[in-house]
Amino acid sequence: MKHEIVKKYQPYRPVDLKDRTWPNKSITTAPRWCSVDLRDGNQALVYPMEIPEKAELFNLLVAVGFKEIEVGFPAAADVEYNFLRYLVDNKLVPNDVTVQILTQAREHLIRKSFDALAGVHRAIVHMYNSTSTLQRDVVFGMSREQIKQLAVDGVKLVKQLAVEYHKKTGTIFDLEYSPESFTGTEVDFAVEICAAVMDVWEPTEQSKVILNLPSTVEMTTPNLYADQIEYFVRNIPRRDLAVISLHTHNDRGCGVAASELGLMAGADRVEGTLFGNGERTGNCDLVTVALNMLTQGVDPKLDFSNINQVAEVYERTTRMNIHQRHPYVGELVFTAFSGSHQDAINKGLAKRKQAEHEGKAITWAVPYLPIDPHDIGRTYESIIRINSQSGKGGVAYVMEHDFGCRLPKTMHPEFARVVQVIAEKQGGEVMPAEINTAFENEYLKRKSPLELAGISAIEEKPDSGEVNLKLKIHSNKAGFLKSGNGEYEGRGNGPLDAARDAIQSATSGRTQFQIKNYSEHSLGEGSDARAIAYIQIEREDKSTFYGVGVSPNISRASIEALFSAVNRAFG
Amino acid sequence: MKHEIVKKYQPYRPVDLKDRTWPNKSITTAPRWCSVDLRDGNQALVYPMEIPEKAELFNLLVAVGFKEIEVGFPAAADVEYNFLRYLVDNKLVPNDVTVQILTQAREHLIRKSFDALAGVHRAIVHMYNSTSTLQRDVVFGMSREQIKQLAVDGVKLVKQLAVEYHKKTGTIFDLEYSPESFTGTEVDFAVEICAAVMDVWEPTEQSKVILNLPSTVEMTTPNLYADQIEYFVRNIPRRDLAVISLHTHNDRGCGVAASELGLMAGADRVEGTLFGNGERTGNCDLVTVALNMLTQGVDPKLDFSNINQVAEVYERTTRMNIHQRHPYVGELVFTAFSGSHQDAINKGLAKRKQAEHEGKAITWAVPYLPIDPHDIGRTYESIIRINSQSGKGGVAYVMEHDFGCRLPKTMHPEFARVVQVIAEKQGGEVMPAEINTAFENEYLKRKSPLELAGISAIEEKPDSGEVNLKLKIHSNKAGFLKSGNGEYEGRGNGPLDAARDAIQSATSGRTQFQIKNYSEHSLGEGSDARAIAYIQIEREDKSTFYGVGVSPNISRASIEALFSAVNRAFG
Repeated sequence: MKHEIVKKYQPYRPVDLKDRTWPNKSITTAPRWCSVDLRDGNQALVYPMEIPEKAELFNLLVAVGFKEIEVGFPAAADVEYNFLRYLVDNKLVPNDVTVQILTQAREHLIRKSFDALAGVHRAIVHMYNSTSTLQRDVVFGMSREQIKQLAVDGVKLVKQLAVEYHKKTGTIFDLEYSPESFTGTEVDFAVEICAAVMDVWEPTEQSKVILNLPSTVEMTTPNLYADQIEYFVRNIPRRDLAVISLHTHNDRGCGVAASELGLMAGADRVEGTLFGNGERTGNCDLVTVALNMLTQGVDPKLDFSNINQVAEVYERTTRMNIHQRHPYVGELVFTAFSGSHQDAINKGLAKRKQAEHEGKAITWAVPYLPIDPHDIGRTYESIIRINSQSGKGGVAYVMEHDFGCRLPKTMHPEFARVVQVIAEKQGGEVMPAEINTAFENEYLKRKSPLELAGISAIEEKPDSGEVNLKLKIHSNKAGFLKSGNGEYEGRGNGPLDAARDAIQSATSGRTQFQIKNYSEHSLGEGSDARAIAYIQIEREDKSTFYGVGVSPNISRASIEALFSAVNRAFG
Repeated sequence: MKHEIVKKYQPYRPVDLKDRTWPNKSITTAPRWCSVDLRDGNQALVYPMEIPEKAELFNLLVAVGFKEIEVGFPAAADVEYNFLRYLVDNKLVPNDVTVQILTQAREHLIRKSFDALAGVHRAIVHMYNSTSTLQRDVVFGMSREQIKQLAVDGVKLVKQLAVEYHKKTGTIFDLEYSPESFTGTEVDFAVEICAAVMDVWEPTEQSKVILNLPSTVEMTTPNLYADQIEYFVRNIPRRDLAVISLHTHNDRGCGVAASELGLMAGADRVEGTLFGNGERTGNCDLVTVALNMLTQGVDPKLDFSNINQVAEVYERTTRMNIHQRHPYVGELVFTAFSGSHQDAINKGLAKRKQAEHEGKAITWAVPYLPIDPHDIGRTYESIIRINSQSGKGGVAYVMEHDFGCRLPKTMHPEFARVVQVIAEKQGGEVMPAEINTAFENEYLKRKSPLELAGISAIEEKPDSGEVNLKLKIHSNKAGFLKSGNGEYEGRGNGPLDAARDAIQSATSGRTQFQIKNYSEHSLGEGSDARAIAYIQIEREDKSTFYGVGVSPNISRASIEALFSAVNRAFG
């Protein structure tokens, strides 16, 4: 970038905390979660939600398991006020859920907020004022002392009204205070102002104060936010009476990381939104933070076992979309197009299936899949998708997963080449149905030059295992059959060997080959079950060809497969 | 989540590195960048690129300033092979750009890769094999020794072919080796296998080896990746002959953070893609990492001064979309809908403008904007958008920014209420043109009950400043004017005061008010310039009303404004 642009910017000044301990910590329990979807999320929408959408999203948040939900800024807009009243008047807030409302530290807004809360069983009054050096200077023109006084005066009023309204209505009020733009605030001043707030509010063991430390704008690498949180936690007086809360944004793409490292640094609570909705680049994505915990064996205490439904409601109510690569929920995040990835996933899933079958311990471990898609209500359907980047493993996976055909391993490269030609021709993805059609055309519909018109007889001698059979063979190629369409006999040490014999004698040696490989399995279940047989033959020039046959009769299936292979090799 | 789901997962085991130093570091210079858009990015597309799209994206990457570009896996697919040949045969690779190709550590793939590279002036041969415990077990069924031998054998062949082909073609070959799935590999084994690779390759000061440490699947918080990188950097023998390269993915939404902390931990090089395209949740987003650096005053050595163009080519060639909240580039990331944010941004921009005007130092500091949108080729246009969540600051911003009208501060709440009503009625965003129409309807088209039909005379007495004027006043309200449509005289200590006098006498005292506030500024430039006047009046009941007038004549504009205010107050 041009020098005059680069020099416009200054590095962020970190807090000095050489003896930090958070990098040795890990996240071992779920934090208190607070959804701000209906406030910080809503205020960032091109189409802010109306009451019906807000109500639907609120119900979803409750169903997911949120116990603290910021429902709006009721003193700022009628729709926010009315929505809170709608929740209260229709008794839509469960007993174990606390609504939270936001207000600036200004008298008329605080008073209106209490009006709006009348009749709620419990509420968190979330009061904030901006404390950063920049906002003190540019927006408010106030000193540290003046900014602190603003917070103190606000909390005094909140406390006074909390007492009054509690007497009148019985509502229990908790206080959350945010030194907004915390990451632009000198951390010692953040401690000072929060300590002053605590002095006024006088929290108790039973009624702690929530101190929320917003990365209102993400200004630096997430480790420095964690340093600030650890500094704050260590220095705030009566830390035991405070719930330390995180509220990160994503301007540098690190909102999730900042919340995670902040938890390691000692925070108790995390504010954020579903899928990271929120002003500008968005808030911390609570779905990702929660599911990241799950992958480490930590119960997040939020239920995303049906993530598709959460996504559907979210997209409809907010009119925002979710990106294809969004962790856990994006359309493509469990999809492997690459051949080597598909192959490894295939093997991992197979190993897992086998272990389950043997009743072994089932810690999740499949290459390229950090979570079992089933655990969040996603299917395996989309894991392996096929285009020109894909390999044999992927094609084989689709044939097995979508159509129940377990192609033998040595058949994978052969059929993958067939699909690769289609993929390169089409340019885009080859859908499972197209792969199946290719499979049918390549193997099952091969009736030329030879067609198995029927099996007249199969006789097996129990002692020697020798088999004699009689096949009705037709050909659409003149002169290919020794004596034209008709019955031909064969003899061998099994039905396949006998069929090979019949074919070779019927074609007067035009079809010289050995059977290299044979496998067969059932297709479907019950009375509809059929057998599918895969047979690999080798011509005299050592090139090999698979053939496939499907029939309710297992002998017929294998003989059909042999005809398919012969037709591919000599067609 | 259900217990049986939670217990399927195990916590990640970190490397033991209590004396880590990276948290005290920061990023002070740009790393070596390597774009893998054409390989890791391309292999994850539903529609893999064809040669024309690849060529366009390659040219874009060159223009942005990438000096190392992984162009494909030429031994894996014809289109990749052909694209490399296309680049070489058409001499599309600038002299200061090195192409990189990927190959597995398998003989036939390595040989085909060298064929594909014939005629390139310099190339990085990027060889990998998977080294994680999981892949060793599930995919390869190989021991550590066998996996190491695979890498060693591969590098031996690469070295042998590099010598051969250099003699034949003059191409300079560098080696990049990746212990793929590094984050699933015991870090001591990663060191061991990389050391073995170095022993074979024998790097020199002039020809270092690139050791690339992929977070193939993001498995843990980003600080633990940084710990692994610092461990690796400290323990790899002859670290001075190695370029340590990062390659992170984004399964936990922390790919950018992992690369940033990895750089702090001592890495020299970063692989990734534009906007984080790549398998599943994507690769590290190099645009974000680079622009994060810029906001700290570090020149990223990549040019994103026209990010919209980069986005346009990216979206067209990859057929992927960029999310509205994607850092730096998303449609909404510089947009503030919230009233308090708009207000603060407004003040910050104004302060900045003033400082620039005074020729002062211009470190970027505007609330809620971590970067100057202009520096990356984005306009301010979309910064402030108006819906029901917006406040007076935003509306005032649009009026000034889009229409040049600098509304007086005390007018902001009044007009914001007008817009708020529209916003709540519409539900969605109120576009600038709609705001302007509302402004015209509310202020400029107010001709009832009084209309200024003309100014017959203005006489000013130079000594006293006393003004006498004669106004032609019409009214559409019967009986409102003392003696009907016609000329009325007024007298005062200035033209406005005289006009007030004329109006009051013309209406027989039906319009009692004081003038509270007046301001006027030019609108437009040159011969088209007009004046716009804003006048606030106060009725006897103390309620206040603004009026606005526009005219090429400054006196006429202010008198029009007075009529507008009177009509709003008494209409």
